[in-house]
Amino acid sequence: MDRVEPPKAIWWVGDTDGHAELIDQTLLPAEYRTITCHDAETMWEAIKVLRIRGAPAIGVAAAMGVVLGVRSAQPATPAAGQDRLTEVCAYLRTSRPTAVNLFWALDRMASRGASLVDAAPRDLVAGLLDEAQRIAAEDDAMCRAIGQAGQALIADGNGVLTHCNAGALATAGSGTALSVMYAAQEKGRRFKVFADETRPLLQGARLTAWELSRAGIDVTVICDSMAAQVMKEKRVDLVITGADRIAGNGDTANKIGTYGVAMLARAHGIPFYVAAPASTFDLALADGSGIEIEHRTQAEISQGFGTTTVPADVACYNPAFDVTPADCIEAFITDRGLVRPVTREKIAEFFANRACNGGKSD
Amino acid sequence: MDRVEPPKAIWWVGDTDGHAELIDQTLLPAEYRTITCHDAETMWEAIKVLRIRGAPAIGVAAAMGVVLGVRSAQPATPAAGQDRLTEVCAYLRTSRPTAVNLFWALDRMASRGASLVDAAPRDLVAGLLDEAQRIAAEDDAMCRAIGQAGQALIADGNGVLTHCNAGALATAGSGTALSVMYAAQEKGRRFKVFADETRPLLQGARLTAWELSRAGIDVTVICDSMAAQVMKEKRVDLVITGADRIAGNGDTANKIGTYGVAMLARAHGIPFYVAAPASTFDLALADGSGIEIEHRTQAEISQGFGTTTVPADVACYNPAFDVTPADCIEAFITDRGLVRPVTREKIAEFFANRACNGGKSD
Repeated sequence: MDRVEPPKAIWWVGDTDGHAELIDQTLLPAEYRTITCHDAETMWEAIKVLRIRGAPAIGVAAAMGVVLGVRSAQPATPAAGQDRLTEVCAYLRTSRPTAVNLFWALDRMASRGASLVDAAPRDLVAGLLDEAQRIAAEDDAMCRAIGQAGQALIADGNGVLTHCNAGALATAGSGTALSVMYAAQEKGRRFKVFADETRPLLQGARLTAWELSRAGIDVTVICDSMAAQVMKEKRVDLVITGADRIAGNGDTANKIGTYGVAMLARAHGIPFYVAAPASTFDLALADGSGIEIEHRTQAEISQGFGTTTVPADVACYNPAFDVTPADCIEAFITDRGLVRPVTREKIAEFFANRACNGGKSD
Repeated sequence: MDRVEPPKAIWWVGDTDGHAELIDQTLLPAEYRTITCHDAETMWEAIKVLRIRGAPAIGVAAAMGVVLGVRSAQPATPAAGQDRLTEVCAYLRTSRPTAVNLFWALDRMASRGASLVDAAPRDLVAGLLDEAQRIAAEDDAMCRAIGQAGQALIADGNGVLTHCNAGALATAGSGTALSVMYAAQEKGRRFKVFADETRPLLQGARLTAWELSRAGIDVTVICDSMAAQVMKEKRVDLVITGADRIAGNGDTANKIGTYGVAMLARAHGIPFYVAAPASTFDLALADGSGIEIEHRTQAEISQGFGTTTVPADVACYNPAFDVTPADCIEAFITDRGLVRPVTREKIAEFFANRACNGGKSD
């Protein structure tokens, strides 16, 4: 299969009179359909029901939602434009209340808007669109930088295992973990990817498989319970996943199941890499014990795909994330290069004289 | 919840004019419905489409199918009865061509029938029914013996993790791994079971959760990817699974995912037990490397929930079993007592002067 660019999760069409377009990820992989957003309400709903997900992509979606929300109100004066801006930011903030990146993007839009306090409404909209496009472009550049930093880790003929979707569909660029694969592919290397299905929401089966296959990368889906066997069969040379939050010592929170995969990789002598922007590191957090694990609804397990698979009177336990200990991680692949070995000292040195924080949500 | 006897997967109703009744496991957990079998064809179909599964249960089903098949043909002479017996055994053999236990049960029925070569057809049927009921009774006794051998391993307040369904629904008694839990419950001990969902066919979520909950045992379903996290949270004191085949050195083939669970248990210092009848040991097999792993259809993964969850052009890899190395196993819980430590020498000593073979299929 010929190489195709990784898909875009969200993009802007036209100029200030244009609109945002995004892939409806809830329909993948059965159907590829895009949603056209001309107003903030459509964008709010898309974020709310996970038509778009992944922290960087949510950030860009919210930023574009601000542009649409201010424009559609057709404010008559600079003051009316500012009022509307405040209103739209507050509204979009409610779409996904635990998504740190959403707040970060909205704060940045509000701040850009505030710098245009005397601007005519049309100029305010133009400034906001410029800011939204900057956020998207920065994310795209970050993804590319991660890909470049990590691509040499994938050798020709390798087997690479990944968990969940840390791909183009989660960002405004080519992803984090998957960006490394796209960059290796660009170098002409051929390799085979095993995508963990990633219960309960199946982002691996539905999204990672879709975007890698679409880009011409050889991908095979396995159930999460098969990762150990595939490792034992020596089909996996390295594992690369994304991250939601990384503590100062390197402990890494990511999608539930990542911890198990990391332990199994270690037991099989397979290097385990985490690809994430520098903004995912939270140096204020000493280690992973301070990371609170979100628990999600039982129905994600018991009624995940339209069928009841658990007896009605039986409880399900559904932690959404887990924490992989630093000593299971061979290196971090960041937009500023590799961090290796994974020690508190090395991380501190890497970030010396620079405060970092942030995160992503899925 | 009050204690209720574990469910029966299959049972005979009445005398030689009676019929077999079995739980349609394909409908669980959404619906409890039994199938009434008056002829071999109904039984063949039930085995074929997994309304009944688990090697011991399949063996009993086939044996009862033989009774029904010979009776329904209403043979007029002893010779016609023998011809029909041969025909029915050959027919039932095609229902599940890889199930060793099916062949074993059919051979036993054929052999009993052959001992009745001069019997009137009605006496032939009575003899066959007696043999089928013996097979069921022996299986039930075997399950109870496993439960008794293992029950002391579960202490009050323990957390127990299991994978797949090695329960009453897989046998003609109270199961293997789950029999240990039923026996501990009978001793008045209270404990909490975590049932791995067990992708792709979800026997843990659908069947283990159903039968434990029905028997008043506290059971919680987790996705397979959550086992490591639940162990890390110190919610699991021991793991008990069943086995399909055990080699002379203790290497154990079981449902895909068992190997990963065993590795994770070891990494967390949690004892991992395998409950299985002595007949599951195949001493002729030096170690697990000689066990061929069955691969099953991709659709079990890609369309497992009634929805397409994998892109149409993406391959799935679906090994149905894996092999857990002997050194991950704390002890075997058999119908003849515990085998511990798990070494080739100890196993040989345990089976000294006795040839064992057999297996179970799921």
